[in-house]
Amino acid sequence: MDFFNVMSVDEVKDILVKNFKNIKIETEKVSILDSYEKVLSKDIISQINVPEFNRSTVDGYAIKSKDSHGCSDFMPSFLDVLGEVRMGEAVNIDINNGQCIYVPTGGMIPKSSDCVIMIEHVEKLDENTIAIHKPISTGENVVYKGDDIKENEKVLSKGTKITSQDIGVLAALGVNEVEIYKPIKFTIISSGDEIIDLDEKLEFGKIRDINGYALYSLIKNLGGSIVKRTIVKDKYDLLRDEVLNGINSSDIVLISGGSSVGTKDYTYDVINSFDGQGVLVHGISLKPGKPTIIGECQNKPVIGLPGHPVSAIIVFKIFIEYLVNEILDININKYTVSAIIDKNLHSSPGKRTYQMVSLEEVDNKYYARPMFGKSSMITLLSKSCGYVIIDENCEGLYKEQEVKVHLL
Amino acid sequence: MDFFNVMSVDEVKDILVKNFKNIKIETEKVSILDSYEKVLSKDIISQINVPEFNRSTVDGYAIKSKDSHGCSDFMPSFLDVLGEVRMGEAVNIDINNGQCIYVPTGGMIPKSSDCVIMIEHVEKLDENTIAIHKPISTGENVVYKGDDIKENEKVLSKGTKITSQDIGVLAALGVNEVEIYKPIKFTIISSGDEIIDLDEKLEFGKIRDINGYALYSLIKNLGGSIVKRTIVKDKYDLLRDEVLNGINSSDIVLISGGSSVGTKDYTYDVINSFDGQGVLVHGISLKPGKPTIIGECQNKPVIGLPGHPVSAIIVFKIFIEYLVNEILDININKYTVSAIIDKNLHSSPGKRTYQMVSLEEVDNKYYARPMFGKSSMITLLSKSCGYVIIDENCEGLYKEQEVKVHLL
Repeated sequence: MDFFNVMSVDEVKDILVKNFKNIKIETEKVSILDSYEKVLSKDIISQINVPEFNRSTVDGYAIKSKDSHGCSDFMPSFLDVLGEVRMGEAVNIDINNGQCIYVPTGGMIPKSSDCVIMIEHVEKLDENTIAIHKPISTGENVVYKGDDIKENEKVLSKGTKITSQDIGVLAALGVNEVEIYKPIKFTIISSGDEIIDLDEKLEFGKIRDINGYALYSLIKNLGGSIVKRTIVKDKYDLLRDEVLNGINSSDIVLISGGSSVGTKDYTYDVINSFDGQGVLVHGISLKPGKPTIIGECQNKPVIGLPGHPVSAIIVFKIFIEYLVNEILDININKYTVSAIIDKNLHSSPGKRTYQMVSLEEVDNKYYARPMFGKSSMITLLSKSCGYVIIDENCEGLYKEQEVKVHLL
Repeated sequence: MDFFNVMSVDEVKDILVKNFKNIKIETEKVSILDSYEKVLSKDIISQINVPEFNRSTVDGYAIKSKDSHGCSDFMPSFLDVLGEVRMGEAVNIDINNGQCIYVPTGGMIPKSSDCVIMIEHVEKLDENTIAIHKPISTGENVVYKGDDIKENEKVLSKGTKITSQDIGVLAALGVNEVEIYKPIKFTIISSGDEIIDLDEKLEFGKIRDINGYALYSLIKNLGGSIVKRTIVKDKYDLLRDEVLNGINSSDIVLISGGSSVGTKDYTYDVINSFDGQGVLVHGISLKPGKPTIIGECQNKPVIGLPGHPVSAIIVFKIFIEYLVNEILDININKYTVSAIIDKNLHSSPGKRTYQMVSLEEVDNKYYARPMFGKSSMITLLSKSCGYVIIDENCEGLYKEQEVKVHLL
């Protein structure tokens, strides 16, 4: 075991991209109703203009704007009403100078009209005549053909994680189905003689499989699927069998647990026992999360996460989420929350530190309160709402300093 | 129709709470693996201590800390090694002064030991003797019984929207199933002669049911279920029939569309045609979203959303999300992103304005760029990442002013 050559967070990210970015993920077509938070595998190009016709945005009269120019309360313009446009129907008449036609909100305006005057601003003199008292300008209360979306416009890009608004856009285009990436397949192996599942009796000295369940949920949240979640005892052969199953059935294999020296050795040796480059990363200058192992077995990433729950979850968030975003080319912005840190914080020299914090709002400002606790404590995470990153070269943070909180 | 008595956003929220907070939502038990983002309907009280025993957080030797006091490189302490604790097994021996026992990470430490010295800091002299060169203090490298979670502690509260970390906590407790609220049931009615579904042919003058699809996705995202999504023509009887179906089968009925005067009248009249208080809110001093109607029919909320997609989605986010959070007592914090607005912005006096913005990061600072466009344009939303709220009493925002961006 050689724990001296630890790598930085950024070096590890580079290794992940270099070795695994090109993992092939299958695609499938789904109804847009099932596409929420799925990732588009193809650009969406509009085949149509939205709207396909010039629409009124108000209830009112479609006119030629120049018929309103110069009019006022003292000198109104009088216009002949040709009739009414019905919702959802094409207009088959046009207007000339001095003419207008009633259009409901969303209705089509006649070809020669360039604006709509709101019904509230019109004086109806009789069935066939209105008076208008103020000028309006070209384009007022009109959405022109293609104003929202133009034909041949790229509307959504490959790698978009689909939002409710995007589903609205797809509906506007009349797109029923989209091509998305199938879930990335994971195997989760929790290793350790002390780990028991929820349906087993808790004996003294044993501990529940916290990581297996938390990772399951993190993977689902990330859009992945879990082929198998299993617990293995600290035996080389048992671990190797499960890793082999994982490589054969999944895109990514996660081994969680194994914080004790014995298990760490097994994980290391198992990864090196397959065809491929074997162990690529063994120890990261990261707190928490140092004892992380990353290997390549038969072109698949096999990742040994630390056993402590906080470390395992943080390592997942830093590296697995990053890798998934890279594989699927996800263009997503994760925004941070600005806050004032309410305690001095020491960093660990040479390590990138992820300090858990809770957030409190006082007088319209957020305050970040560092949460302390050992990384074996799952409640340290459930009581925090995010973390602050303290860089390798930073000596620490000072009370009252402004920090960026990454939400969990 | 009386559009004069418009209410403020806060007044409308009060009306929603007063009339609909006590809607009864059924509960059910689900596996914790299916509980992600579901809402707990009962507090979770721990039946056990986590951990249930004093555990080592490192590979090392469990000792009595006072045996290390005063030792140094020049005057090491020598300790007898009694043996080894096996992972997942109870310790059946104890240590006396001058004795120690090897414990792997996560292993149980003997009763009389109060700290663990890391293997890296120990000199192994022979199979039965180690030397230690620096003092360590009580509690070092140990997690005590109950340190993470104490027996009878309230671990998660009713109204918690379950996170991956919470699932980790539940696993730690050995909790297999939790009681959660069943999805709140919605009916979505899109009304308008111009509205067609995705499988219909787009004729000139028609428009796709953008709102129906966007609302479907927003409801799913909020944890609700959609009993029916339907499109009705602008006819009083047809609309009333669908609202009746909705009231009978759902908890909340949404009518979307109906921006034209005729449809607005129908929605108003239909709501007033049922047993109950009828229309409670007719017009909100809100931009976009003014033409919103809220009524009570047979104790159920029936809500007429504006027809323009941006307005409908914003009204959903402001009022329906709020109502759902109130009904389920959800304790959730939505954090805002601080940004600098990069343009002057006028507000609409007397209205609360929701201004859509995109966010850009430059030199470690976020800049909010106002997105302009008519509220009938769905791309206005899909190109934005959030909104800034301009208060009723605020005259507007100045360029370079710091603002809070609410993410979509």
